[in-house]
Amino acid sequence: MTAATFSQWMSDIQQRTETALDCALPAADIAPARLHEAMRYAALGGGKRVRPLLVHAAGQLSGATPERLDRVACAIEMIHAYSLVHDDMPCMDDDVLRRGKPTVHVEYDEATALLVGDALQTQAFLHIADAPVCDSPQGQIAMIRQLALASGSRGMCGGQAIDLAAVGLQLSLAELEFMHIHKTGALIRASINLGVQCGRRLGDNEMASLDHVGKVIGLLFQVVDDILDTEADTATLGKTAGKDAASDKPTYVSLLGVNRARELAEEMCADALGRLAAFGDASQRLAELTRYIVRRQF
Amino acid sequence: MTAATFSQWMSDIQQRTETALDCALPAADIAPARLHEAMRYAALGGGKRVRPLLVHAAGQLSGATPERLDRVACAIEMIHAYSLVHDDMPCMDDDVLRRGKPTVHVEYDEATALLVGDALQTQAFLHIADAPVCDSPQGQIAMIRQLALASGSRGMCGGQAIDLAAVGLQLSLAELEFMHIHKTGALIRASINLGVQCGRRLGDNEMASLDHVGKVIGLLFQVVDDILDTEADTATLGKTAGKDAASDKPTYVSLLGVNRARELAEEMCADALGRLAAFGDASQRLAELTRYIVRRQF
Repeated sequence: MTAATFSQWMSDIQQRTETALDCALPAADIAPARLHEAMRYAALGGGKRVRPLLVHAAGQLSGATPERLDRVACAIEMIHAYSLVHDDMPCMDDDVLRRGKPTVHVEYDEATALLVGDALQTQAFLHIADAPVCDSPQGQIAMIRQLALASGSRGMCGGQAIDLAAVGLQLSLAELEFMHIHKTGALIRASINLGVQCGRRLGDNEMASLDHVGKVIGLLFQVVDDILDTEADTATLGKTAGKDAASDKPTYVSLLGVNRARELAEEMCADALGRLAAFGDASQRLAELTRYIVRRQF
Repeated sequence: MTAATFSQWMSDIQQRTETALDCALPAADIAPARLHEAMRYAALGGGKRVRPLLVHAAGQLSGATPERLDRVACAIEMIHAYSLVHDDMPCMDDDVLRRGKPTVHVEYDEATALLVGDALQTQAFLHIADAPVCDSPQGQIAMIRQLALASGSRGMCGGQAIDLAAVGLQLSLAELEFMHIHKTGALIRASINLGVQCGRRLGDNEMASLDHVGKVIGLLFQVVDDILDTEADTATLGKTAGKDAASDKPTYVSLLGVNRARELAEEMCADALGRLAAFGDASQRLAELTRYIVRRQF
């Protein structure tokens, strides 16, 4: 589709996401300065930006403008960043390292981490409502609604609650999948759906097919995460490795073994790529990104 | 305006708010059931419903339908409920009693309280985006934006951060006002502004005047809260009394003394009522509510 290599494209999106987030977050010298500084600490300068990459790759399927995709990508990344800040807190995963830096409650304090997460969530909804992200205001309201559905008690946040309740339990594969469809899957799926909606309207069948792709990529991402958590070391991951096994959390690896988990990832990848092939050249970046998610080392 | 007495009207709005919240929150038997049960515990069955009362009273100024007002009232009350759940947590105010019941982290656990607050915030944005709340989709997007502004780092959540930073400090009256304009004022002001916007469009001068009323009522509410915190007992308040003095937080009473604080409340009340008089009968409930806020005993 374009002359740039995938890695050039990826690096370009990561850079423009950083710039867009920098503009979308309140400046660190605006009162309350400490809160704003900590929000920026949590959201800027790190992360693979998988969700923004998915938003931009999906936007190519509907010819969306980069400006609208930046806005949606920032809103989704703020939701993701808030969830990490709260998940890392002592009453949740109690983690001290994130993206190679001390977590927010370690660098600042617990009360600030709580407020940073709260305010990043609000900022996400402020940002996606702050300027047009699709051709009609009705469409924009529908997108805000989808972002909320994907993030809330029946999406990401609900997945977190299911995860908490699952510690120490023997889950079936179906139950593990149910947890991950919520916990990480919902926001990844929303990244693709919302990215597409930034551009021209696609047919219902096309949207349904892309929704399936989003669901598969969401689970795929988690399967690979579980494999990496078993195999990589803390320095490579930028977060504490082996955490899940240590805290007796069920994972695809603990349930299936690492070899079957790898096979499952390859099967899911083939499923997603098969669907994307029907979209021709317009799906190039999303297909490349799917392959990257399976092959990534961190 | 209507034949019902103020106390009948108030009781009617409180009841319909309870019913509307009951419908707006996911049922307690939907997975994740424990999270949904705890969200309902936090939001239902208590509270004075001051913000919903303000939404409905303000809606009378523009002839808004009760259904739209219920929707906006529920969204604002969910934001308020989330802020209480998080404020009560050990890393913030560490309070065990709220609305006469154990706080969420006491009744459930800290991790659940964190997720309940997170999910209630998301639910608020889902709810206000889920059906029309004004005559145009553009207007609805503007209302979502205003709700986010009032709740986020430059509104309620920012006020909480300023409050945290102020413990043990000697604030000036201007600094105390700056904190409260954010912490409680922003959402109260938004209740009036958003309630009005559910109905027919008012002129810019009228909206500016009502915005001033909202700002004054927001501060007034806090001045009265500070007086009550000094004078009432825990049983009457339904939350731990004397907390602010005990935790060395600056209040209007600690800064002005109780008599001057009372005078200030009366002056603010007169200011708001003076503005509302220009709206004639349509401002009846908002005027009554303003007087009620000054005279309330809990």
